[in-house]
Amino acid sequence: MTEKPEAKQTLEPTSRRRFLSGAVGGAAAAAGLAAARPAVAEGESVITEVQDWNRYLGDGVVSRPYGTPSQYEANVVRRDVEWLTASRQSSVSFTPLHELDGIITPNGLCFERHHGGTAEIEPSQHRLMVHGLVDTPLVFTMPDLMRFPRENHVYFLECAANSGMEWRGAQLNGCQYTHGMVHCVAYTGVRLKDLLAEAGIKTNAKWLLAEGADAAAMTRSIPLEKALDDCLVAFKMNGEALRPEQGYPLRLVVPGWEGNMWIKWLRRIEVGDQPWQQREETSKYTDLLANGKARRFTWVMDVKSVITSPSPQAPIRHGRGRAVITGLAWSGNGRIKRVDVSLDGGRNWTTARIDGPSLSKAMHRFYLDIDWDGSELLLQSRAIDEAGFVQPTKNELRAARGENSIYHNNGIQTWYVKADGTVENVEVS
Amino acid sequence: MTEKPEAKQTLEPTSRRRFLSGAVGGAAAAAGLAAARPAVAEGESVITEVQDWNRYLGDGVVSRPYGTPSQYEANVVRRDVEWLTASRQSSVSFTPLHELDGIITPNGLCFERHHGGTAEIEPSQHRLMVHGLVDTPLVFTMPDLMRFPRENHVYFLECAANSGMEWRGAQLNGCQYTHGMVHCVAYTGVRLKDLLAEAGIKTNAKWLLAEGADAAAMTRSIPLEKALDDCLVAFKMNGEALRPEQGYPLRLVVPGWEGNMWIKWLRRIEVGDQPWQQREETSKYTDLLANGKARRFTWVMDVKSVITSPSPQAPIRHGRGRAVITGLAWSGNGRIKRVDVSLDGGRNWTTARIDGPSLSKAMHRFYLDIDWDGSELLLQSRAIDEAGFVQPTKNELRAARGENSIYHNNGIQTWYVKADGTVENVEVS
Repeated sequence: MTEKPEAKQTLEPTSRRRFLSGAVGGAAAAAGLAAARPAVAEGESVITEVQDWNRYLGDGVVSRPYGTPSQYEANVVRRDVEWLTASRQSSVSFTPLHELDGIITPNGLCFERHHGGTAEIEPSQHRLMVHGLVDTPLVFTMPDLMRFPRENHVYFLECAANSGMEWRGAQLNGCQYTHGMVHCVAYTGVRLKDLLAEAGIKTNAKWLLAEGADAAAMTRSIPLEKALDDCLVAFKMNGEALRPEQGYPLRLVVPGWEGNMWIKWLRRIEVGDQPWQQREETSKYTDLLANGKARRFTWVMDVKSVITSPSPQAPIRHGRGRAVITGLAWSGNGRIKRVDVSLDGGRNWTTARIDGPSLSKAMHRFYLDIDWDGSELLLQSRAIDEAGFVQPTKNELRAARGENSIYHNNGIQTWYVKADGTVENVEVS
Repeated sequence: MTEKPEAKQTLEPTSRRRFLSGAVGGAAAAAGLAAARPAVAEGESVITEVQDWNRYLGDGVVSRPYGTPSQYEANVVRRDVEWLTASRQSSVSFTPLHELDGIITPNGLCFERHHGGTAEIEPSQHRLMVHGLVDTPLVFTMPDLMRFPRENHVYFLECAANSGMEWRGAQLNGCQYTHGMVHCVAYTGVRLKDLLAEAGIKTNAKWLLAEGADAAAMTRSIPLEKALDDCLVAFKMNGEALRPEQGYPLRLVVPGWEGNMWIKWLRRIEVGDQPWQQREETSKYTDLLANGKARRFTWVMDVKSVITSPSPQAPIRHGRGRAVITGLAWSGNGRIKRVDVSLDGGRNWTTARIDGPSLSKAMHRFYLDIDWDGSELLLQSRAIDEAGFVQPTKNELRAARGENSIYHNNGIQTWYVKADGTVENVEVS
């Protein structure tokens, strides 16, 4: 860490002169003429040699009543993989994790997974029904729901199929594609248990069925115990209304569990005494093992992490010296206790720095600040959660579950950083 | 809290029959024919009586690579007050606080305050210079800055003029206008003290000048002590790049202090031994007292709160019974310790529930769940911070500072809730 960043312009005479002389002129004017005129005018005339935006008035307020990113960020978008699914209505897009920092995913960049496209719901017409093994079946309007006590929580949401294509080896060249079916959002909603209490649950109740109002009418069975523990019926994400593709106006929040259970466009909750054996918990979202048997109801998303930069879509462009390695870690079991980073494919590990709030069942942001000597790296991260679970290698996962699986791949990811700073998705044995 | 929400549709036969019979049919089919067919088909046919969105495939993934809110949220936008300023380039827009929940302000809704419009900066051309009383003047590119260790923090940012028009009585009918020059965002950036250390600060250094690259070249003097304490040079907000109107690609973060000091489009930091006496800290952003003297360098934003709903733009529409009172509290001194709510103009107070993370110099969300009997209310909130400061009444402020002030009005706000649920901005004496 003793070497100064190479790209810094102390040794670049043209650039140095251009900026430094100009601004120093401005500063001198400020010191001498503070009362008469601000430094701005002097400084400005020199800075404009290179900075056009300093010469003209920019856009005024409410040019965009709802703001949008800079035109220079046009490549920071969700992307899909066109060959992956037959249609875009039953498909997935991926969060550009390699472009983000911190733990919050902006609403416009949260990955999408639809089974029948995005329902475009008019909230005044939306209803949530609670029925089945209850004393009083109820139908709630949106304003009804907003009268219950509200809670706020930051939670990650991960599709069970995230990293699914990595079971059989390194497939996709970028963490947006290998790990981008995850996001982390601050939710506002009401407790599902309060709505159930309002209806009155019968003593033989053990399961819920949650159903969406989309064309696929997505349905999943959820054990009552989870519903009474920490499930929310949410109407806001990151402060504002849910986005249409995230279930506007109402989504079930099932902290730490498979994203597919977080029913979007939530319209119905039925209380029963056994699971419903829906398509999405029998034919799909089960894990076929090597012996032909399938794991079912594998709800919890296991401890996992990935380095988001450098990564194939975020190569090292600055050459040797000071560099920041950063990534995300999360676990359906609670908080992340520790993240280790390896530069040599798992032979040696260094504990990374977790920065920002450490919240249960939320993303954790980690950093390792290194002095890169320009040699090749095999970057890996390994997360450990507060329940003591350690993120396994992909080979450990395969040994336990075979290679038929699509879901629940939380194996350690390897990025191969070459001497020129470019990065590839590889596997180490 | 014993009364059930009135708008709930248990007593509304048409709606009840429409939804309940349909979905129960679906559920019965599911229980009987689970293996053969999902419940969806049966339930769907009845629900379509009222829900068109269930009949058609919706938009597919990446219909919007960068997502946008629902068409039904088109009224959730920043707004300005056209008569307030001569132009929109030197003006302000307001955060729609009454529509939001939780503590995070979505990037698209963060209020704007420009003095020369929004600079539209190409990040590859942007530079940050550090010079003055330093050993080595430096010019940083954006990639240079991203090689320093990063930190993440959630901070509120409040314009010193927020609520400024309320000094002389109730002026504007809505918390978007009375209190909307505030937002709360998760920032990612590097420590200003690390950049200063890289340049090497001379022993006689006491002050910094921070300058923006906009047409106004906004400039403020900042004491070195604050810079070395908790200032950040930030490049991301809520996970993604700063928005243009929030300083893209680089903004100074000055936690807890006047928003005007959080220099946007940050291009220059000069180190000196005394303040520069810029326009924005002499003619503006000072507080003229009744005796003709002015308070200067009043940086810290004092403890403050406001009820965001109900409020003039968010009336009670649901009639009597269960109701949620909610609002925001913040303090430049650190965490909020307690928020009290009064229903009767400050005669009696009840401690509200603070929900969500309690972070230093960040927004705090509070709730009071009440059973409204339909009588008129004089709603107030009063925040107390961890330093022990108590939010004053407007009259207490006036007694201390006279009525010449524009800035630093943290007085208690009063909303008059009428029997029909509409709300007005009033003052109580």
